[in-house]
Amino acid sequence: MIVILKQNSDKERVDRLMQHFKDMGLTIHYSQGENTTIFGLVGDTTKLDEGDIMAYDVVERVQRVTEPFKAVNRKFHHEDTVIEVAGRRIGAGYFNVMAGPCSVESEAQIVEVAEAVKRAGASFLRGGAFKPRTSPYSFQGLEDEGLKLLLEAKRQTGLPVVTEIMSEKHLDLFADVDIIQLGARNMQNFMLLKELGRSDKPILLKRGLSATMEEFLMAAEYIFAGGNTNVILCERGIRTFEKMIRNNLDISAVPLVKIFSHLPVIVDPSHAAGRRDMVQPLSRAAIAAGADGLIIEAHNDPKNALCDGAQSLDLPQFDAVMQDIRRRAAFEGREMMPQ
Amino acid sequence: MIVILKQNSDKERVDRLMQHFKDMGLTIHYSQGENTTIFGLVGDTTKLDEGDIMAYDVVERVQRVTEPFKAVNRKFHHEDTVIEVAGRRIGAGYFNVMAGPCSVESEAQIVEVAEAVKRAGASFLRGGAFKPRTSPYSFQGLEDEGLKLLLEAKRQTGLPVVTEIMSEKHLDLFADVDIIQLGARNMQNFMLLKELGRSDKPILLKRGLSATMEEFLMAAEYIFAGGNTNVILCERGIRTFEKMIRNNLDISAVPLVKIFSHLPVIVDPSHAAGRRDMVQPLSRAAIAAGADGLIIEAHNDPKNALCDGAQSLDLPQFDAVMQDIRRRAAFEGREMMPQ
Amino acid sequence: MIVILKQNSDKERVDRLMQHFKDMGLTIHYSQGENTTIFGLVGDTTKLDEGDIMAYDVVERVQRVTEPFKAVNRKFHHEDTVIEVAGRRIGAGYFNVMAGPCSVESEAQIVEVAEAVKRAGASFLRGGAFKPRTSPYSFQGLEDEGLKLLLEAKRQTGLPVVTEIMSEKHLDLFADVDIIQLGARNMQNFMLLKELGRSDKPILLKRGLSATMEEFLMAAEYIFAGGNTNVILCERGIRTFEKMIRNNLDISAVPLVKIFSHLPVIVDPSHAAGRRDMVQPLSRAAIAAGADGLIIEAHNDPKNALCDGAQSLDLPQFDAVMQDIRRRAAFEGREMMPQ
Amino acid sequence: MIVILKQNSDKERVDRLMQHFKDMGLTIHYSQGENTTIFGLVGDTTKLDEGDIMAYDVVERVQRVTEPFKAVNRKFHHEDTVIEVAGRRIGAGYFNVMAGPCSVESEAQIVEVAEAVKRAGASFLRGGAFKPRTSPYSFQGLEDEGLKLLLEAKRQTGLPVVTEIMSEKHLDLFADVDIIQLGARNMQNFMLLKELGRSDKPILLKRGLSATMEEFLMAAEYIFAGGNTNVILCERGIRTFEKMIRNNLDISAVPLVKIFSHLPVIVDPSHAAGRRDMVQPLSRAAIAAGADGLIIEAHNDPKNALCDGAQSLDLPQFDAVMQDIRRRAAFEGREMMPQ
Repeated sequence: MIVILKQNSDKERVDRLMQHFKDMGLTIHYSQGENTTIFGLVGDTTKLDEGDIMAYDVVERVQRVTEPFKAVNRKFHHEDTVIEVAGRRIGAGYFNVMAGPCSVESEAQIVEVAEAVKRAGASFLRGGAFKPRTSPYSFQGLEDEGLKLLLEAKRQTGLPVVTEIMSEKHLDLFADVDIIQLGARNMQNFMLLKELGRSDKPILLKRGLSATMEEFLMAAEYIFAGGNTNVILCERGIRTFEKMIRNNLDISAVPLVKIFSHLPVIVDPSHAAGRRDMVQPLSRAAIAAGADGLIIEAHNDPKNALCDGAQSLDLPQFDAVMQDIRRRAAFEGREMMPQ
Repeated sequence: MIVILKQNSDKERVDRLMQHFKDMGLTIHYSQGENTTIFGLVGDTTKLDEGDIMAYDVVERVQRVTEPFKAVNRKFHHEDTVIEVAGRRIGAGYFNVMAGPCSVESEAQIVEVAEAVKRAGASFLRGGAFKPRTSPYSFQGLEDEGLKLLLEAKRQTGLPVVTEIMSEKHLDLFADVDIIQLGARNMQNFMLLKELGRSDKPILLKRGLSATMEEFLMAAEYIFAGGNTNVILCERGIRTFEKMIRNNLDISAVPLVKIFSHLPVIVDPSHAAGRRDMVQPLSRAAIAAGADGLIIEAHNDPKNALCDGAQSLDLPQFDAVMQDIRRRAAFEGREMMPQ
Repeated sequence: MIVILKQNSDKERVDRLMQHFKDMGLTIHYSQGENTTIFGLVGDTTKLDEGDIMAYDVVERVQRVTEPFKAVNRKFHHEDTVIEVAGRRIGAGYFNVMAGPCSVESEAQIVEVAEAVKRAGASFLRGGAFKPRTSPYSFQGLEDEGLKLLLEAKRQTGLPVVTEIMSEKHLDLFADVDIIQLGARNMQNFMLLKELGRSDKPILLKRGLSATMEEFLMAAEYIFAGGNTNVILCERGIRTFEKMIRNNLDISAVPLVKIFSHLPVIVDPSHAAGRRDMVQPLSRAAIAAGADGLIIEAHNDPKNALCDGAQSLDLPQFDAVMQDIRRRAAFEGREMMPQ
Repeated sequence: MIVILKQNSDKERVDRLMQHFKDMGLTIHYSQGENTTIFGLVGDTTKLDEGDIMAYDVVERVQRVTEPFKAVNRKFHHEDTVIEVAGRRIGAGYFNVMAGPCSVESEAQIVEVAEAVKRAGASFLRGGAFKPRTSPYSFQGLEDEGLKLLLEAKRQTGLPVVTEIMSEKHLDLFADVDIIQLGARNMQNFMLLKELGRSDKPILLKRGLSATMEEFLMAAEYIFAGGNTNVILCERGIRTFEKMIRNNLDISAVPLVKIFSHLPVIVDPSHAAGRRDMVQPLSRAAIAAGADGLIIEAHNDPKNALCDGAQSLDLPQFDAVMQDIRRRAAFEGREMMPQ
């Protein structure tokens, strides 16, 4: 951490600030220029908060030198993390496709979709039981019942499942779920992050709509801090000024995760654009950029879907996209799960 | 709702779509042009979701005509809502200042600040017990203990209190809190919104960092949908590309709330910019734009604050800002609370 | 400028970098920590470019300490700049309202509007002759002819005029214009900035739609660098994710200009929101935040305006807004121009 | 165009609005609901401006049905446009790589780079003579002299050149340039767009930092409207809230251009992120998403580059990236230019 002091600062106040840093166990490198005095703070600065330091009126500016995340930082964990779940490996070149409907609607629907996406080569079944909806008047998911149907589809097809949690109170309900998804709107629901940190389930952490990459990695750090190191990151589009599409897939997120972290990262091309015809090109871009997998919406009957029909592939479309994905994963030298 | 069909759409599929709308109890105004066919849907369209309709492959585009929010919509409730709490009125020209430290740190601190802000003219004491922090390594608030100290300050000074809730599990702890704050990062924590909808406490709903005005009002609609009509909106800055300040106060939010809703709206000039020297000019802008109040960070010792010191006023600064606020509220013909 | 080196950097390469800085006449403060080596560069760093320094592979990060702008920086010019033009003073507490139609359409129209806005108390007549339009099929302004009509209105009413330049080639045409406006889309048209820098006309520099405050001030610095110190900044709304309004007025820009620069800053409430009913509340916020003036669209017949009718006030509405503005300027202790 | 009227609008005013549309040669489809009256306007609506219509006080909302761009719209020109220049074809599956330094610095430099990128397989040499720089104190390019050196490199190597124009006044200087680049900051410099529309040179049109896709295509429409149909679009990253990288490459732009337009689109992975280590993954994503080419910064000595060194590949790095690009273009079935 670099602390730049205001010109002509009162010496006594500067000394008090130096003492404050020393009390925190930090070493100070003091550099006195003509117009500028600089402190370089050495030691564990993850506990320091820029805002706190800025409160000292002798301080002009503060600049972090090292990233505020530690446990998820590649600097301190050079190898790619591989998460093993239900016989699948996620990360480090293993490639997984998670597919299924936006929401679970009935046993017939979820089983039909599960069978189809399994046949097409998906390694996980996704499906929403608890649905975050902008409007209280929109369909909110089948909730507990939806979860049961999803697990029934798992039983019938053998596909492990990934589904979204929306409340700390529901954790027990998710006991048989294979991967728990934390949605974009809850990426900084810190209580839920802490709760998931105490779990040992793999967590699919979706990036918030306007979360910086640093905040995204800090959310993963929360889960790690609780003891759960099974975190899969998911880029799903960010909010910008653009109006033609719902969100802008931030393809840079994929290589940035690979540079700064050891965690697996997958991409959601369905929610990113909100348009069916963008799923294939965005999937291709994600694979080429180095993503460890994809999560894709597929429905047996998109036009009667109870949510987000505009972005769902129908089953033949999904099958075609999967063939393309497999060809591309092979080109990239990635191993498709499951074997 | 306007539905624009694709050119040369299959008649049978169009009929199926029309039937779908009729089944939802909607009346259809059909308009056939040379290249364009348009449906105008009349009736209660709040249950319709644009994404669902876009799933029909005959549909080119969907455009909402009426706002998706009803209960909080000024069209259906012309009078300004006034919320009465602890002898204060909020909304409709009554002006409230809520003030206090970012976080409760000790009894001495919170009581000293409470006395000072009361003396200066604040009508509520704010203070964080549960703190949302980007880093798991930052101070997370005194939690239950902080809440107790806050209520102790209320007991000693008579100032009603406003403090943030971060978990559905904590609602019982907030029984003696006067106004429950829902933070920006939880604005679309729908489970917590529903829980607060079942409460009868006034809710201070902060706008999400990248929430559109429509989403902001829909979050309020969630609380109303649960039966709780005591919602105070709070604009606290939005996330943009700017780097000099933490967030950009969206001053337009104030008149937009007044145009589209009947709810009170206050402004948080402290979190908006994250700079102490911006609190006064942003407060002035907020009053002039028609805000019903302000929520301001004030601390007895900002430089030793355990969070967000950079934006906290010290007590003499707060006193000076309050004098300015009172003079301006009088100019605007607003009644300062409490009387 | 602070330069943070990568761990374990090759000594020889570091020496080469140090030599590079010394060759530029800079003094280096060298600080060697356990894991981090830091250079503090002292001297005139405005010529340094962060990107260039990052190219050295021993460099981890670069952080500017002093602002990259000098001539417009308040640090080196403490007094507010006051620009004198046509008997009006702009800046330092003098308050100006510039008003008129989006575009000049006919002599009758521009003279009628000029007389009305003068009567209401405006100190400048605005009106577009050359119009930047998103579509090549939209009305592009009356161009040279529009400029003549605007100057005719000036002749008949005595109101000085402000109008937008869109091409370096047109500078001669603007000889009798009092203030030349540079539009938001041309804020980083560097050739035009340089040309205006060689002029001695006051320049009304509008902030680009997504220009940071630093870039905004750097655009002013371009004009100063050419020798023209008559620059008036204009905040006119920034582009964000919000959909209810065209742009979000960045009210923070006003105090930030006052903190970092000595230049006058005015606000355009008409283009900011693009809605007539937002002009008054945004004007009020601007005055309260410390703006030195306003530029407002007013038209004798907004619904037949050839552009941007949605945001134009009609003449009685403008008159009402002006009465409100005068009352508020008086409250703030600002002197309305012209006296 | 759909026009939604306010409830209970005055009949006479509505009639006047209808007459206005009829006078413009439009046919009106009138739809009267219980609470809503809707006009559907049929005919050539590209000349209509939403703002103008919103000025009528009987109008509640306006919604465009057809895109405002015509000449560049795929609906009216189904085949991919192929631009032929200097024996290269651009678009429709032909793949071009344009490479070279940020700025031309000397004959030795530009010739060395030209030879190296040609050897590696680039089909065009890029290099800046006129440089848009945020600071007036930064190196502004060698200007006329730089252009001469670039053309000298073309003479020596046979590589056609692409370079940026910054002023209408310079068009004559660009007579021997093969492709004229219009930079992101000038994307809505409408005078320059018109001038380029009168030229017959291929134009590389870079997307503005916060330009919507619609605005981007409308800028191309300006060039078409002047008679020049040789436009190559270039996605180069958009401005968002993210701080780790300079801009966020909007990979969605590639498929969106393909859906809505017939123009070729290339990607600039160097400016997008501003980090050397992102060039390869972003290039891969661009090829996979369907881009018609890439424009990449390569320099013989990035750390001594006079601008943007942080993002330049050195020549061996560029060679490695090109080998990867060729392998991927082959996989995609694209024909690398030149043959």
